Amino acid sequence: MTTLEDVREWDAADPLGGFRDRFALPDGVVYLDGNSLGALPKATAARLKAVVEQEWGEGLIRSWNDRDWVGAPRRVGAKIARLIGAEADEVIVADSTSVCLFKLLMAAAQLRDGAILAESDNFPTDAHVAGRVAELLGREFRSVPRDRIGEALTPDVAAAVITHVDYRTARRHDMRALTARGTRIVWDLSHSAGAVPLDLARDGIELAVGCGYKYLNGGPGAPAFLYVQGALLPQLRSPIAGWWGHAAPFDFSCAFEPAPDISRFLSGTPAILGLLALESGIDLMLEADPAQLWDKAIRLHDLFAARVTALCPELENVTPADPDARGSHIAFAHPHALAIVRALIARGVIGDFRTPDIARFGLTPLTLRYEDVWQATGIIADVMTKEAWRDPQHASGGVVP
Amino acid sequence: MTTLEDVREWDAADPLGGFRDRFALPDGVVYLDGNSLGALPKATAARLKAVVEQEWGEGLIRSWNDRDWVGAPRRVGAKIARLIGAEADEVIVADSTSVCLFKLLMAAAQLRDGAILAESDNFPTDAHVAGRVAELLGREFRSVPRDRIGEALTPDVAAAVITHVDYRTARRHDMRALTARGTRIVWDLSHSAGAVPLDLARDGIELAVGCGYKYLNGGPGAPAFLYVQGALLPQLRSPIAGWWGHAAPFDFSCAFEPAPDISRFLSGTPAILGLLALESGIDLMLEADPAQLWDKAIRLHDLFAARVTALCPELENVTPADPDARGSHIAFAHPHALAIVRALIARGVIGDFRTPDIARFGLTPLTLRYEDVWQATGIIADVMTKEAWRDPQHASGGVVP
Repeated sequence: MTTLEDVREWDAADPLGGFRDRFALPDGVVYLDGNSLGALPKATAARLKAVVEQEWGEGLIRSWNDRDWVGAPRRVGAKIARLIGAEADEVIVADSTSVCLFKLLMAAAQLRDGAILAESDNFPTDAHVAGRVAELLGREFRSVPRDRIGEALTPDVAAAVITHVDYRTARRHDMRALTARGTRIVWDLSHSAGAVPLDLARDGIELAVGCGYKYLNGGPGAPAFLYVQGALLPQLRSPIAGWWGHAAPFDFSCAFEPAPDISRFLSGTPAILGLLALESGIDLMLEADPAQLWDKAIRLHDLFAARVTALCPELENVTPADPDARGSHIAFAHPHALAIVRALIARGVIGDFRTPDIARFGLTPLTLRYEDVWQATGIIADVMTKEAWRDPQHASGGVVP
Repeated sequence: MTTLEDVREWDAADPLGGFRDRFALPDGVVYLDGNSLGALPKATAARLKAVVEQEWGEGLIRSWNDRDWVGAPRRVGAKIARLIGAEADEVIVADSTSVCLFKLLMAAAQLRDGAILAESDNFPTDAHVAGRVAELLGREFRSVPRDRIGEALTPDVAAAVITHVDYRTARRHDMRALTARGTRIVWDLSHSAGAVPLDLARDGIELAVGCGYKYLNGGPGAPAFLYVQGALLPQLRSPIAGWWGHAAPFDFSCAFEPAPDISRFLSGTPAILGLLALESGIDLMLEADPAQLWDKAIRLHDLFAARVTALCPELENVTPADPDARGSHIAFAHPHALAIVRALIARGVIGDFRTPDIARFGLTPLTLRYEDVWQATGIIADVMTKEAWRDPQHASGGVVP
């Protein structure tokens, strides 16, 4: 059995151990929600101060050129490309995940006739966007449970949206195998990018979107990213034409000519504050060795799972034991999961609740020590033993996104 | 003839004179581009520091509830509503102007058959969005010059997009008169909101979008806003369904049910950093008396126009003399406008160039003194006299957005 001394030794030997001090984490908290909102890198606070006071305040309109705000969507996209195994010119930062998904799904579905397919039980925005795209294009909408999505990838489907890592259970699809079935898929990498090994080129991925404010530590409501395989790009047109997607935006021509590159998927003026905060978070992540990141994620997970199994048998672990079949968070089912999560937050262990009965904990290798997992699981055990979650003070209140 | 002593007296008596010190303006610059990127309010720098370090860094995921990030799109929308003569629940902050326009134009066009109409010579993103909307819906696209747009508002038009204030000449349409023709219009208020008197309720306006980073001083790439007349809202559905537009986002249901209120036009997670920076800019503007703002805008403009007419007859003033027919910037045509603007920027007078031949200067009453206009127009005269703009150093380089 692992002991506290063991995990302290793991921390002492952790090659990623130095990253924790690069984040501004509050005292008295074990933060297990970096899969929902990543923690603040200290460098981001400094970068945003400079962006606001110098680039905006002093530089004013000149910073679009002098500080290359103009190039930021492609520049930051190229950095994300390194994290997901794509070419630098295949990724761009824009809008929100929902809007990026809308753009790619509309563009993909217009290439051929057929149904629009989505998962019926994954993160709802994917199904919402897909259902409405089907309506707008007059197509059949198919909504299929996640565990049967493979068999639904039939030749009469024009485009599917599939989430790589399930936001509740952390179950991970085999991207390569599903892609090999030949149906065009827009992959949602929201719970994958920065969390699990990705190699979009190797796996033959054509289209993907992802989130900036989770594992990429981009800040609340950070812009999203979208990926288009280079060979497919020339065939695709954004449904939201706008001046930033024009081949020559500053010619101010009312005749729309799409940019020859991935910029064609931009629409309006980029959200510079969020975009540069995101860049700062990604710069930090690019300093870490990806193999070390994933290795530590596996070990954090295994420690968490073993401790909960030993200490709290009434919590049902719904995340796969096989690392190749899961993401970087861990989830437990319990009929009183909401009250339990609230009791834990009151004790400084910040995870979150997802309907109907899931307590979810993100395991982010850059910010977490093994001892944090030890401590958090100890508090979980204490809360479960004392049934503190039955306290009425935890029985009401809002749910965090 | 007005003298420098006169304008100094005007500044001394200016009821808005105290606002200038609330902005972080660089030394040695007369900033005449607040119509492209508004200046930095000092309070915004402090607010963003608190948002980053305390709300994100310390509060982490809890700030969605504890700091009411969740309510920010509606809360800031309600503040914008006060600036444009709308009800608090008729405005929401979301996305970029282009994406907001796409949402409203798609939604409006789906209410009835007919053509999609746009101006052929105003800010290009409006025509880009409208042309693509027409394609997606299989409608005829009509593109008509701005000065003939009134006669194009015929019963066979399903929806039109019209910009209230022209981004080049500052010519302003009569919103009420054009609306009274009965064709459904999505108004683009990008160069109006925070600049000219607006009363959407009085004028019977049904739909509008506007920009956060110009006169509202929201920062580079600030999110945009959209307005829907309360009575029309229940009929409209966003083309981009997403979880933030759901009636109960945190139920995480894959069955989409649009929010009963203006939130139905949200899609993805709001861009919190940009949204709260925008709120800070709007809070400052709400302290100013709207009548005093417009009165000062008129006087700044008249002083600018009179000085240029007297000192630089070779610059053709293309902005209407009648205040009721113009916005809050002033524009001059000259074959060498680009070189002239570059020479002025090198002298610290920051305006901008717009194709093909327009030198454009924004007149923002919160940040500008009458003496700034006196000084800037003096430098313009000097540049024109010395033909400094013929200097080859100004003949190349990028154009700011």
